[in-house]
Amino acid sequence: MNVLVINCGSSSLKFQLIQSDTEDVLAKGLCERIGIEGSRIVYTPAGKDKITIESPMPDHTNAIKLVLNCLTDETNGVVKSLSEIHAVGHRVVHGGEKFASSVVVNDEVMKAIEECSNLAPLHNPANLLGISVCKELMPGVPQVAVFDTAFHQTMPPKAYLYGLPYEAYTEDKIRRYGFHGTSHSYVSKRVAEMLGKKPEDLKTIVCHLGNGSSICAVNQGKCVDTTMGLTPLAGLLMGTRCGDIDPSILEFYAQKHNLDVYQVTDILNKKSGVLGISGVSSDFRDVEEAADAGNERCKYALDAFKYQVAKFIGGYAAAMNGVDVIVFTAGVGENSATTRQGVCDYLGYLGITIDAEANGKRGEEIEITTADSKVKVFVVPTNEELMIARDTVALTK
Amino acid sequence: MNVLVINCGSSSLKFQLIQSDTEDVLAKGLCERIGIEGSRIVYTPAGKDKITIESPMPDHTNAIKLVLNCLTDETNGVVKSLSEIHAVGHRVVHGGEKFASSVVVNDEVMKAIEECSNLAPLHNPANLLGISVCKELMPGVPQVAVFDTAFHQTMPPKAYLYGLPYEAYTEDKIRRYGFHGTSHSYVSKRVAEMLGKKPEDLKTIVCHLGNGSSICAVNQGKCVDTTMGLTPLAGLLMGTRCGDIDPSILEFYAQKHNLDVYQVTDILNKKSGVLGISGVSSDFRDVEEAADAGNERCKYALDAFKYQVAKFIGGYAAAMNGVDVIVFTAGVGENSATTRQGVCDYLGYLGITIDAEANGKRGEEIEITTADSKVKVFVVPTNEELMIARDTVALTK
Repeated sequence: MNVLVINCGSSSLKFQLIQSDTEDVLAKGLCERIGIEGSRIVYTPAGKDKITIESPMPDHTNAIKLVLNCLTDETNGVVKSLSEIHAVGHRVVHGGEKFASSVVVNDEVMKAIEECSNLAPLHNPANLLGISVCKELMPGVPQVAVFDTAFHQTMPPKAYLYGLPYEAYTEDKIRRYGFHGTSHSYVSKRVAEMLGKKPEDLKTIVCHLGNGSSICAVNQGKCVDTTMGLTPLAGLLMGTRCGDIDPSILEFYAQKHNLDVYQVTDILNKKSGVLGISGVSSDFRDVEEAADAGNERCKYALDAFKYQVAKFIGGYAAAMNGVDVIVFTAGVGENSATTRQGVCDYLGYLGITIDAEANGKRGEEIEITTADSKVKVFVVPTNEELMIARDTVALTK
Repeated sequence: MNVLVINCGSSSLKFQLIQSDTEDVLAKGLCERIGIEGSRIVYTPAGKDKITIESPMPDHTNAIKLVLNCLTDETNGVVKSLSEIHAVGHRVVHGGEKFASSVVVNDEVMKAIEECSNLAPLHNPANLLGISVCKELMPGVPQVAVFDTAFHQTMPPKAYLYGLPYEAYTEDKIRRYGFHGTSHSYVSKRVAEMLGKKPEDLKTIVCHLGNGSSICAVNQGKCVDTTMGLTPLAGLLMGTRCGDIDPSILEFYAQKHNLDVYQVTDILNKKSGVLGISGVSSDFRDVEEAADAGNERCKYALDAFKYQVAKFIGGYAAAMNGVDVIVFTAGVGENSATTRQGVCDYLGYLGITIDAEANGKRGEEIEITTADSKVKVFVVPTNEELMIARDTVALTK
């Protein structure tokens, strides 16, 4: 069957059409600047060049109509009619404690996603809008919601409870939720396949390192801890996000600069992390280049990032009382050999030995440790869209 | 020589008189409720029962006068006159980046301590007051400042820099400082002695677990990382403090309860941690008792605490690419065998095996691992006063 995978943001929309038997991507693309002047769709049918169409998209209905037009277009389309799209899988950022797995969307589910909106005010409303529009334009086609938080719902209380007044959890729902769950789930399952083992027999640490980064401890196939928290601000320092800091810093900084908590939090989200330390860029490639050219602040930023990744890996090895395999994924994890090497340089005590030649390869699924390394380290390119398509098929076939 | 050790708080003052050759404590005590109705001094000369004297102490001058009166009292005193107090060592909480070791106090040092007051507004002014009063009452007697932060000044930038705009460090001095440095320094040196090794040959992790808790990674005798940060709010969840949390929680909680950042931070300092989760007490003994009686929230609090300790130990093993010895100290670390056992249960992968009988003993310096344990684990009662006395002697003899 053909599954349309939709990742709907407030002013953008990413999509892929996946043939589920072969898992081939028939077409993919991106709508940009929805509701803003200068909107356009970039559409790439499999095996062809990408096509950019400038077209007004005053709202998400127009955007999804354009997507469907592209997919069914006589010349560049990949299906003959909408009837060949058998299901739609939607990325939904926050499922709160309600969703521990993907789910076929009905009115009750829509309501529950809306109820989680205060936990992800920038994302859930846009995700919901995408679902509503698809329901309207493709009546009768099943819609599936796949949550970024669902994979992490197996965490025990010791991992998800914060040291806060308990009512902050029971009444305000403040707890660790974790994100990138679809990626952590996909990668942890895939590496087990590559090792010829069952996830149930492995202690796995997945490092999803990109512009947003999180690490996840997966014990016997289940998430037991992860670095992101109530929101995606927590854990590692990231492109522009600060990650874990002394919570007193907000008060100190607010007082120093005469700001309120909302303004400080905005700085922690948008002007901090690698961008903040380096002063150069939030993009690791730019920062690596500048560091190589001698920029000291860029070196600090990269050193701190690798060090923090290593410390979380060490912490999760303790959380699981051991680790069998560590996996790097996402933009930085898949492409930066120096980051992987730098992180693993801390981990000799676990019996890890990196194979420099294997680590130098790019963009493929590969083991990067030597044959005698006690803990295996892999690079596995993530594929959240495929995971969403698989979940969609499993729930609607 | 005789060294008076003073730990001066805003409304309390702890003291010990230590004979530095034998390192005997000649007398010790506590002034409570300074500047508040109902003030009193509790004084214990060595080998005698403690004496409580209710006496008005409108200010710190009166308090320190009372201390000196007790020490030189005809009946219960331990020295004949003030001339037998040869130096005074003061605990000072925050030395910023100015002090990487203890220092003899002069006007310049006083000024520098005052400049660090904005980093520890509750502590440094009281510490300074104690120094001023002692200078006034004991003219010519050398005063030494011993900083809680000094031992941690060897941390590298990757450990002390936060993922914040760089100016937050250079201009606002926002960085990881760490606290309990005197304790971490004492304990890490002492355990090396017990092992018959030089600190330079060891990778040590010190767990100072009390009502306030912090963990410190000591590589070759030098602090390379610690859990507390700009302030003592960071790191582990503690008696009433939250420790590390998603920094977005402040905004979320402020919005939910219509509070500002100062009010939220106050809750994070005073109503959170073990008290917050358990709802029972900030005292681990109360919480352990309630957990044993079946209180689930108390169990959550203790589980989370042990889990977080284990994760930091794991993280610091990565930070140093290995660990030789782990030490527990301070109230909980010295006295709670179940906490030590619970933490070490996570650490089998490091080759740690606990000797349950040794771990069951209380209040003494002891190794609690079996002979074949690859990483050694010790209990070492901390002694910050002795460390302060030693530093004072070293700088004034």
